[in-house]
Amino acid sequence: MQAPRIPRRQDGDYTRDAAEERRRFIREQTGTDLTHVGAYSFDPAVLPGNIENFTGIVQMPLGFAGPLRVNGEYAQGDFYVPMATTEGTLVASYSRGMALTREAGGVITTVVDDAMQRSPVFLFENARGARDFGLWVTGNFTGIKAAAETTTRSGRLRNIEQYPASRMLYLRFNFTTGDAAGQNMCGKAAYAACRWIVDNYPGTISRYFLSGNMDTDKKHSQLNTLHSRGKRVIAEITLPRELLRQRMRTTPEAMYAARMTSQLGGLMAGAVHNGVHPANGIASVFIATGQDEANVAESHASLVYAEVTADGSYYYSVTLPSLIVATYGGGTGLPTQRECLESMDCYGVGKVRKLAEIVAATVLCGELSLGAAVVAEEWVSSHDQLGRNRP
Amino acid sequence: MQAPRIPRRQDGDYTRDAAEERRRFIREQTGTDLTHVGAYSFDPAVLPGNIENFTGIVQMPLGFAGPLRVNGEYAQGDFYVPMATTEGTLVASYSRGMALTREAGGVITTVVDDAMQRSPVFLFENARGARDFGLWVTGNFTGIKAAAETTTRSGRLRNIEQYPASRMLYLRFNFTTGDAAGQNMCGKAAYAACRWIVDNYPGTISRYFLSGNMDTDKKHSQLNTLHSRGKRVIAEITLPRELLRQRMRTTPEAMYAARMTSQLGGLMAGAVHNGVHPANGIASVFIATGQDEANVAESHASLVYAEVTADGSYYYSVTLPSLIVATYGGGTGLPTQRECLESMDCYGVGKVRKLAEIVAATVLCGELSLGAAVVAEEWVSSHDQLGRNRP
Amino acid sequence: MQAPRIPRRQDGDYTRDAAEERRRFIREQTGTDLTHVGAYSFDPAVLPGNIENFTGIVQMPLGFAGPLRVNGEYAQGDFYVPMATTEGTLVASYSRGMALTREAGGVITTVVDDAMQRSPVFLFENARGARDFGLWVTGNFTGIKAAAETTTRSGRLRNIEQYPASRMLYLRFNFTTGDAAGQNMCGKAAYAACRWIVDNYPGTISRYFLSGNMDTDKKHSQLNTLHSRGKRVIAEITLPRELLRQRMRTTPEAMYAARMTSQLGGLMAGAVHNGVHPANGIASVFIATGQDEANVAESHASLVYAEVTADGSYYYSVTLPSLIVATYGGGTGLPTQRECLESMDCYGVGKVRKLAEIVAATVLCGELSLGAAVVAEEWVSSHDQLGRNRP
Amino acid sequence: MQAPRIPRRQDGDYTRDAAEERRRFIREQTGTDLTHVGAYSFDPAVLPGNIENFTGIVQMPLGFAGPLRVNGEYAQGDFYVPMATTEGTLVASYSRGMALTREAGGVITTVVDDAMQRSPVFLFENARGARDFGLWVTGNFTGIKAAAETTTRSGRLRNIEQYPASRMLYLRFNFTTGDAAGQNMCGKAAYAACRWIVDNYPGTISRYFLSGNMDTDKKHSQLNTLHSRGKRVIAEITLPRELLRQRMRTTPEAMYAARMTSQLGGLMAGAVHNGVHPANGIASVFIATGQDEANVAESHASLVYAEVTADGSYYYSVTLPSLIVATYGGGTGLPTQRECLESMDCYGVGKVRKLAEIVAATVLCGELSLGAAVVAEEWVSSHDQLGRNRP
Repeated sequence: MQAPRIPRRQDGDYTRDAAEERRRFIREQTGTDLTHVGAYSFDPAVLPGNIENFTGIVQMPLGFAGPLRVNGEYAQGDFYVPMATTEGTLVASYSRGMALTREAGGVITTVVDDAMQRSPVFLFENARGARDFGLWVTGNFTGIKAAAETTTRSGRLRNIEQYPASRMLYLRFNFTTGDAAGQNMCGKAAYAACRWIVDNYPGTISRYFLSGNMDTDKKHSQLNTLHSRGKRVIAEITLPRELLRQRMRTTPEAMYAARMTSQLGGLMAGAVHNGVHPANGIASVFIATGQDEANVAESHASLVYAEVTADGSYYYSVTLPSLIVATYGGGTGLPTQRECLESMDCYGVGKVRKLAEIVAATVLCGELSLGAAVVAEEWVSSHDQLGRNRP
Repeated sequence: MQAPRIPRRQDGDYTRDAAEERRRFIREQTGTDLTHVGAYSFDPAVLPGNIENFTGIVQMPLGFAGPLRVNGEYAQGDFYVPMATTEGTLVASYSRGMALTREAGGVITTVVDDAMQRSPVFLFENARGARDFGLWVTGNFTGIKAAAETTTRSGRLRNIEQYPASRMLYLRFNFTTGDAAGQNMCGKAAYAACRWIVDNYPGTISRYFLSGNMDTDKKHSQLNTLHSRGKRVIAEITLPRELLRQRMRTTPEAMYAARMTSQLGGLMAGAVHNGVHPANGIASVFIATGQDEANVAESHASLVYAEVTADGSYYYSVTLPSLIVATYGGGTGLPTQRECLESMDCYGVGKVRKLAEIVAATVLCGELSLGAAVVAEEWVSSHDQLGRNRP
Repeated sequence: MQAPRIPRRQDGDYTRDAAEERRRFIREQTGTDLTHVGAYSFDPAVLPGNIENFTGIVQMPLGFAGPLRVNGEYAQGDFYVPMATTEGTLVASYSRGMALTREAGGVITTVVDDAMQRSPVFLFENARGARDFGLWVTGNFTGIKAAAETTTRSGRLRNIEQYPASRMLYLRFNFTTGDAAGQNMCGKAAYAACRWIVDNYPGTISRYFLSGNMDTDKKHSQLNTLHSRGKRVIAEITLPRELLRQRMRTTPEAMYAARMTSQLGGLMAGAVHNGVHPANGIASVFIATGQDEANVAESHASLVYAEVTADGSYYYSVTLPSLIVATYGGGTGLPTQRECLESMDCYGVGKVRKLAEIVAATVLCGELSLGAAVVAEEWVSSHDQLGRNRP
Repeated sequence: MQAPRIPRRQDGDYTRDAAEERRRFIREQTGTDLTHVGAYSFDPAVLPGNIENFTGIVQMPLGFAGPLRVNGEYAQGDFYVPMATTEGTLVASYSRGMALTREAGGVITTVVDDAMQRSPVFLFENARGARDFGLWVTGNFTGIKAAAETTTRSGRLRNIEQYPASRMLYLRFNFTTGDAAGQNMCGKAAYAACRWIVDNYPGTISRYFLSGNMDTDKKHSQLNTLHSRGKRVIAEITLPRELLRQRMRTTPEAMYAARMTSQLGGLMAGAVHNGVHPANGIASVFIATGQDEANVAESHASLVYAEVTADGSYYYSVTLPSLIVATYGGGTGLPTQRECLESMDCYGVGKVRKLAEIVAATVLCGELSLGAAVVAEEWVSSHDQLGRNRP
């Protein structure tokens, strides 16, 4: 009557055998054969730290878009971008945008900020207690930083923002995290910092929580848009008028008019950003390259800014204020994910800004492609052709 | 010098052979062997409508969480929930929450709204033109509906919202879409409706766009929180005080205090919702079950409401206002994804609300588990143990 | 030691004598002579319903801006707009904008929506209870409407929006309120409706509150921007290129470029609207005409949309989604306020939409004037000349 | 046919005579006698810098609320708070809250931040140009500060925030402004700083605007809530359970339950703050004391946080993140306004934080009073009694 627990082994839980036992268990409990789920090509021993109750795999279709030309500071040249998706039209549409921008000389990309956050909150008897504490934190940054950094080799505490409200002081710790996304690193370091604070603060702290939610982990926030989370990357391009006409059957003016109408709609709707669909490109590259897929929630935010220039070209830019990516740690080392990263020479140490630039350039191409399709009224027909697995 | 195009075949592009050719191409261009990417277990002939340039697969680790007890109107009983993720601790943490709620009798779930949108915008000479058009739309709903529904078997135009601004009228078409997520269906139907409108409106329309962005496709919006997108599902539980103490080493009061502090932080940060991390559960179930992974951007919104009740229990609820799920179409029919759906008896016709309920119940369990870990200061230690693939 | 109470009379509290007693009291307690405060020209007997503890007046400087040409449906012709303010430059700047738009033929104004809200919330044992209640409310609109309307001569319950979350159902009652702003009218009518609901609902309501805050009284909200509060008014103009050059020493392109840059800044900042300073014009006209001055918080929201047209003119529009105005009741009947209303022929019954149109046209003129000043770098110099009472 | 211009004099425009001429003009043009408008008690010579086209006054009814006990760092003791309003019930309701908090020992107030902003934006050829410029700004803060401060005696440039997006860099200059609100001072200083920057920056600036809108002048923004604008003030109180029962006929639990329900409603509505009606108290004190009345738009934002404490009391706090007040300059020196300030000993130099504390304490009292009225179902009846000037 009571459904049994999923089998789990004290030892050897990350083995083909243990996974098979769980598939058998699911079949016994639900009648479902997990045949395809069981068809994975790697040794489960690589998985600790990535999943529990490993049972098999989801086979997510992978296509490459591109070539994408990037004129970044870290990414330079042409790239084939791996995208894992089940949404028809997506790879084709991004590829179309990439062809357009390549012909215009490539996407310029710039990383302008880079930090990961954890935001503890401290509670006091009243607001003055919180304010006094804030002054102490400012004066004791060196000690806090030292305590935080005992826990990590690559993380560095860059600065601490302070936000007072009621009798609380919310701190937002900004860490540089090397090539890792760094959430766990930041959590651990912030925890050490908090304990040091509690031990050393001469005043009275009523209590504290390791997160007061101003890191807005796994959700978009205006604070992220303002002060960045992960990488803040800007992708830019200027499209010659004639190119737009030839390739996209439209004009800068028509693209721009649609964009402005759409922007007003989004503003009225309270949309969290003024782009079109960065989430599509980001989600599919994230899955392909072993990023934390839930970070799409934060990373999909954008600030799009476009202009019809004096000479009739179309300047278009996408600012991603909170792009969370890694080329090391997390899911990046899993076999298929690593292959995808390596295909862009983005695996491992010293590659994370390169990846950030490629993602931003990819997003820009997708914005242009969909934007043009809406204007040229090819949106429905292309989806009708490519995007419907079932009638 | 110019990077070559990715090979694509007029015929037979969805074959093992074509995929292999593309893997060979990637190896030639980038030096990367896509060995594991090539290890898929199904016939690519199933893929048209899901991806272009199919090259292989990403093998996303899959674990089951649960059993999860759901007291829904569609989902009733115990479920093992498939979660695809590379984030350590995730499956364990959701499982922990599921054990807690199961012991409290299970999660109550209720679907309170269900519709998918497309929002065309019509432009006029001035605001009065837009206003007059709005009256005509109201008076001609039957004709618009008939035109829209010529394009779809399962979609029904339920109602049209109107939002005037400047000389535009933004319409928001609400369709019921059966067991499909329905974005493409809605796009096609709205397009037909727009053409009917243009043909039949006696006044002058300057122009129109199929999307004025008030569908806020692939991004969160306040409008979605207000008027729903996809399913609006509510999950609820009342946790006895003693259970919380035993299982989570905490009390309703401590959980609640942390939640209120966190909520104020999120409010100050301009976070788009007041939950903790629904994106985690949603992303991993979405990937496992063939949902459009970019829809995490919309679906991760939540309205959490908790109370310490008069008798000292902890009432906790999660409202997901814009959960976009399907049990038919899109990626749901792909081999591993279908197996995952079938393991919950959620594949195919008549199952979509059941799936929505299971996702909502899953999210609630994850909120409780992480919330308790933060309070009990077990968050860092558990991540340290389970969540770090690389030191 | 304990500061004494402010004197108040059972009878005759709205008299010159009672006011003088309070001024004397303030002088005794604080040493401050309220000489100018005591210099009012009307009989305090007009004040019940407008203020308690009447002690005198604040003398707010009043200037007229204009003439403003309005091509509305209710306001037609030239108006001198009374503005009460202490902010130098304000009247001059709005006048400048009015001169500009008059020369362009006048501002076109359109009222596109009109309703006032009160939003009770009902609590239930669980979400299903709330959902069932919602269906009942839909089915019993006639009864609810009848109950609400027993309390008011001019108010009509137009429709009820429903917003479910957790185990609550938030209702948003929309009333038409004639020429009154109507908040109190709505409160009273909604209260009667709630009592009728409680008496007649066959199910179990745990409890209810007369406001669940979705009327967002005295504060801006996205909901107001979407569904209006008070009047939704749109003001439009097309400015010939040459006129802009002559009058404002700028071009449509320069104005537009500044606007787009500013709009991106506001978006990044999380500003609640994309206009420049509607609050200035609204606050000063509100004070002059006896509107509830706190409603600036709601009324200052705007949706600005501009275009450089194909022929090089500048189309500019302001949508005010939540303009709360009255020409009857509240402060509109006080002597100076009534004179101000009468100077625009906006006092009393049947005038409220006329006033709404004038306010919207005024706002548009102020947006253009300040926008042009920023572009022409005349902003600081004009404020330096007109706006600094003390060096 | 064309409406004539409002008469204005080169010399002697701020005289009784000039004002009378304008009233005559209005009568001739509109038929309206501005009798009461003409009844002012001061010499118009005090008005330059406050208004143009001075024609007379609006007589805004003034009442005092209180006594209000404030336990601030600047405001200490009992105050009678001048409130100018036409909204019946307002003064009575705030007085009721003041009586409640006085009996609980008074409101604790704390100013935790204090700065005024102007936010120029600089445009570049591309994002890298903007990024390089940002580094230069950081390195040249001393020069920028010196240039800014040449224009002002009391203003000091405290720090510059930087926000990059697209090819723009938005700067947010924070000035301390003494006892003035300081918007004009900041504008002038920022303008001088911008000219210095343009003269000294070795790179190429495409152009700049004095405001890029991230000062969000005259409108609420999330940025203000995060980083303050004007004063950030926190007001707190702990109300004994018994006091709440006796005075307000309610309990902490009932107050709190209503508050939480209301907060969820506001969150769902996208309300800009989670208070009830700070705009009421702020607007009426602003008008009484010569503040810029349009600043209600920014100042009405609040972060309310409440708790039922372990011993059953009710802790309640209001954080006003962007309260813009002055005790010097602007309208503060006008006769009635100055009397109102003086009645609280808040006129002139060194008083602005005292005023900020009194306003915050006032707001808190109003929140409690209305909150209790809603719970005790006395809201409608009190408005029915006090708040309806016309039936």
